[in-house]
Amino acid sequence: MTQISDYGEFGLIKHLTENFPLTNTSSLKGIGDDAAVIDNGERKTLVTTDILLEGIHFNLEYVPLRHLGYKAAVVNFSDIYAMNGKPEQIVVSLGVSARFSVEMLEELYDGIRLACQTYGVDLVGGDTSSSLTGLTISVTCIGSAKQEEIVYRNGAKDGDLLCVSGNLGAAYLGLQLLERERIALKGNTQSQPDFAGFEYLLQRQLKPEARKDIIDELKAAAIMPTAMMDVSDGLSSEVMHICTQSGVGCRLYEDKLPIDYQAAVLAEQMNLNIVTCALNGGEDYELLFTCPIADYDKLLPLDKIFIIGHITDKADGMNFVTREGQLMELQAQGWKAF
Amino acid sequence: MTQISDYGEFGLIKHLTENFPLTNTSSLKGIGDDAAVIDNGERKTLVTTDILLEGIHFNLEYVPLRHLGYKAAVVNFSDIYAMNGKPEQIVVSLGVSARFSVEMLEELYDGIRLACQTYGVDLVGGDTSSSLTGLTISVTCIGSAKQEEIVYRNGAKDGDLLCVSGNLGAAYLGLQLLERERIALKGNTQSQPDFAGFEYLLQRQLKPEARKDIIDELKAAAIMPTAMMDVSDGLSSEVMHICTQSGVGCRLYEDKLPIDYQAAVLAEQMNLNIVTCALNGGEDYELLFTCPIADYDKLLPLDKIFIIGHITDKADGMNFVTREGQLMELQAQGWKAF
Repeated sequence: MTQISDYGEFGLIKHLTENFPLTNTSSLKGIGDDAAVIDNGERKTLVTTDILLEGIHFNLEYVPLRHLGYKAAVVNFSDIYAMNGKPEQIVVSLGVSARFSVEMLEELYDGIRLACQTYGVDLVGGDTSSSLTGLTISVTCIGSAKQEEIVYRNGAKDGDLLCVSGNLGAAYLGLQLLERERIALKGNTQSQPDFAGFEYLLQRQLKPEARKDIIDELKAAAIMPTAMMDVSDGLSSEVMHICTQSGVGCRLYEDKLPIDYQAAVLAEQMNLNIVTCALNGGEDYELLFTCPIADYDKLLPLDKIFIIGHITDKADGMNFVTREGQLMELQAQGWKAF
Repeated sequence: MTQISDYGEFGLIKHLTENFPLTNTSSLKGIGDDAAVIDNGERKTLVTTDILLEGIHFNLEYVPLRHLGYKAAVVNFSDIYAMNGKPEQIVVSLGVSARFSVEMLEELYDGIRLACQTYGVDLVGGDTSSSLTGLTISVTCIGSAKQEEIVYRNGAKDGDLLCVSGNLGAAYLGLQLLERERIALKGNTQSQPDFAGFEYLLQRQLKPEARKDIIDELKAAAIMPTAMMDVSDGLSSEVMHICTQSGVGCRLYEDKLPIDYQAAVLAEQMNLNIVTCALNGGEDYELLFTCPIADYDKLLPLDKIFIIGHITDKADGMNFVTREGQLMELQAQGWKAF
């Protein structure tokens, strides 16, 4: 028998779904991007889904249920924005074990409600079931976009700029911090965890936002990305997805990586390499995109956007350029659920 | 703290989602029917979702993974047909523990593939994650319908006929049979379970079908149901949903209930009341609908459709009429996941 871990998450999905040809004319795009695309004439429907399992994706010892609900919704909105679409509806399914009370689920839904209000999304359906084991949350988000607005992962061109909408690695370091304090306080009910000086890292981990503001800014600046996705598994892994699907190479520059100072300080304390955290820590939910170099002047005034590299010919490979100017092959060591 | 079981499944969803007003003009219908309805101009998108958890919805001791995959997809198609729509896309999310091999997941996907091929539906997305505990399957199905074709649960009118597309209680009895044989053979590896004479019940439980054929027949006969839903939780519970949402009463006749002879025989053997099984056993996935009495002549030639009662004024209440002519108030003792 073949172990699931032999494939890894992406390999497994790819393997399991490779014999599913699309047959309906309404199925414009299936598996392989941030969202599927369905044709309805002028208006296209975008569909994305995520499943979150207790003990794998979250630990209720340190994640408040309200934040969990918010995050479960927002990470799906992020996938719709990553297609340059507008999230409009979600359906939420829960599996809940007997240790959960109605009040706990109310907290979870308070978080979902806040996310829906903040991003203008309607909760339109779901399913709720008991579970023998902990909490499972499955969210599907429906969005819309005009055909000509949709941005896939496969449109990056040689010479394009490679951009990201914010700093990287902070969500991963927030998780390390929560885990460090949990272990330090195990069995100790007298003390409180010490998060002083690292509040931003906690926020990045516990209450991430989807970058609607970036989508709006790009539209206002008349910048149309050639390829885009959100950074959920780690920058390296996502850059490689864009390059592979677009049939191009890239240069990603170490000295261009946006890193928050709290992330740098905690990485130092914990003896972690901050560049590795920025490249491979997941859950940043920033938008990673490429756009033509002709848009450079339009990009400059947008101070939320960082140019971190550029696209090259495929033959040049996918490269990370160190501060010393050394070229290293990009490696996907992204956050893996297996 | 309030126990979840104090609410029951429907009460819980209603309670948790009551402060989620719809704000997008594209959100035509939210929670409360077989599927949500989203506006795209002429074409409406239907969305339904189901979560299946190991040990709650299925027991892998007697459910083959291929059948489980088939059923997980088909029950969602059934919800789209119950809106008089056409299922076109599904997304499938899995949580999988380490005891599952790639080959086991291939079997599951073989079943999903067969369901997709049979019903003309495309798999367009999903998410796969490891789980600490068993198998979780979350399926969301997207369908389409023209506005004027969509059938909600709330359109039943006084005087309408109450119809169902097939016999009831067999899936529930199939489950009782599987459970009986599992217990009988516990620890005995020499013998095989004895299903002789009850093959149809097993099929109804393990490989249910969605009634696309009925939707096609009704269309061909120019019958437009006034209200419709599928029978997943039990006939009583579903009839009450239609009556409550339509603001009407009903009479449902014991002697009109379609019951398969295998179901009757097994109920007798197991000392179960077959009428109770037909009223409250879930997972039949037949279509329950109402239509104007003027359609009676068009219904008669359709031998797959059974008229089981009629709609009355709300003041008459929701009644079950026994063979003896006695009126009893309908009770929802439907299959509950809590």
